Amino acid sequence: MRKLLVIGIGAGNPDHMTVQAINGLNCADVLFIPDKGAKKNDLADLRRQIWDRFVTNPKSRRVEFDVPVRAEPAPSYRSTVDDWHEAIAAIYEALIRDEIAKDGCGAFLIWGDPSLYDSALRILERVRLRGNVAFELEVIPGITAIQALAASHKMALNRIGDSVLVTTGRRLTQEGLADNAGSTVVMLDGKCAFNTLADKDVVIHWGAYLGTADEIILSGRIGDVGSEIERVREEARLQKGWIMDTYLLRKPGEPEE
Amino acid sequence: MRKLLVIGIGAGNPDHMTVQAINGLNCADVLFIPDKGAKKNDLADLRRQIWDRFVTNPKSRRVEFDVPVRAEPAPSYRSTVDDWHEAIAAIYEALIRDEIAKDGCGAFLIWGDPSLYDSALRILERVRLRGNVAFELEVIPGITAIQALAASHKMALNRIGDSVLVTTGRRLTQEGLADNAGSTVVMLDGKCAFNTLADKDVVIHWGAYLGTADEIILSGRIGDVGSEIERVREEARLQKGWIMDTYLLRKPGEPEE
Ligand SMILES: C[S@@+](CC[C@H](N)C(=O)[O-])C[C@H]1O[C@@H](n2cnc3c(N)ncnc32)[C@H](O)[C@@H]1O
Ligand SMILES: C[S@@+](CC[C@H](N)C(=O)[O-])C[C@H]1O[C@@H](n2cnc3c(N)ncnc32)[C@H](O)[C@@H]1O
Repeated sequence: MRKLLVIGIGAGNPDHMTVQAINGLNCADVLFIPDKGAKKNDLADLRRQIWDRFVTNPKSRRVEFDVPVRAEPAPSYRSTVDDWHEAIAAIYEALIRDEIAKDGCGAFLIWGDPSLYDSALRILERVRLRGNVAFELEVIPGITAIQALAASHKMALNRIGDSVLVTTGRRLTQEGLADNAGSTVVMLDGKCAFNTLADKDVVIHWGAYLGTADEIILSGRIGDVGSEIERVREEARLQKGWIMDTYLLRKPGEPEE
Repeated sequence: MRKLLVIGIGAGNPDHMTVQAINGLNCADVLFIPDKGAKKNDLADLRRQIWDRFVTNPKSRRVEFDVPVRAEPAPSYRSTVDDWHEAIAAIYEALIRDEIAKDGCGAFLIWGDPSLYDSALRILERVRLRGNVAFELEVIPGITAIQALAASHKMALNRIGDSVLVTTGRRLTQEGLADNAGSTVVMLDGKCAFNTLADKDVVIHWGAYLGTADEIILSGRIGDVGSEIERVREEARLQKGWIMDTYLLRKPGEPEE
């Protein structure tokens, strides 16, 4: 049977690669590398860097493929995601069928960790359900942007014994800061949702391009640094053509525990 | 100035070690390895395995130290944690002062990732505030038990676009399943807190000794597998003398998004 590896490659620093991920890369005959278009070419470059540096298996081939762009989320967010995932599933299916020998091994390289806001595992489950190609699946974990953020800020995510909510910019805007977690990590925020919070005493620990040479980190009360972060973020985004940022919010005035 | 590395070593599999962590280990003149007593000797063994396998710097020394046991959390959980951390801070301070040369480098090896339910960073902050030894700090992220759990279950942590709450067994028992996250990850649960949930349709993805040769994983409706997990867990704990488990809970009947 075909074997598929879904490999987390870390969130920006090639040195995030684990021994398990490096071994996985070198087991595979073919590495699948999504190319999400020109804007994020730095990311595609990073994937290629990882390939150049860590792949020592001379039989290994690299196959880049295009991921269709998602339609705007209207009228139903869910149905557009559904159509989009089905279209990607057809692409994955073809890659698996055409590029991997019947007893071969292919690997998908996933930014950060495959378990966090990434659709590859969900799409591969669709491919399996379509029933046209059979494969065995193995997942190799990777360092997420959350770990990279905490490392750069030299801090724990959680207060002592407390919970941590991991959420998206969209949800933070809709729901505000949660009551059941003293710490909230926000990903997938294109709009500085932290600045929509009413409580300006909330403390933010923000990071962009984490783990890369362009890393920027900033911390402070939202009232003090909120607009500075927005400015720095916009400047960096315009200069590089893209940005990825993640941040941790802590409620003010609460005990550590 | 002295340099301190706080290195995440992954959550059970030595192959979780990243390139950055391996390089960090080999920068340090001295590696600090907490030995939390006889029961968890497998963990101390794993740390030693990592040392044996990845440390190539001939100058590197290993220093094991005892971590004081925490007093029972009564009458105030917070004050016992406080006393406990102050006692550990004094130990860290002495280690840094006595074992690292003034321009040397020492490394603390941390299970999983230093940012998740680990007190080392908080204690080093205390050491810094005590003001008796100065040091520069660098944190190297590691694979957490959460990533290992998701990889073994070959699944994403989040539903599409949804939040994930990371919490403790104690909090799950006190607060039940949160409303603001379709997925909840539970750590530090000595008592199968999932079996206290009223809704038996909640789905659990459970894992113990993740990443190790003894890994056990089980999944299903709590109504179907809840007592089986409790039995398997107790059996394993008695046999090995210790257990570490982590699980993901998903609310039933909710759409993916
Ligand atoms: C589609 S999610 C993928 C997350 C990834 N699977 C992980 O484990 O980190 C993309 C989001 O991750 C975060 N992110 C990923 N890499 C990042 C980096 N190097 N610096 C800051 N944020 C990053 C941003 O919040 C971004 O919107
Ligand atoms: C003190 S916390 C440390 C977490 C660690 N810093 C991390 O990043 O995974 C210990 C808890 O982590 C989880 N854990 C750590 N290693 C594990 C493993 N190999 N298998 C299952 N759970 C694990 C358990 O929930 C355990 O109670």
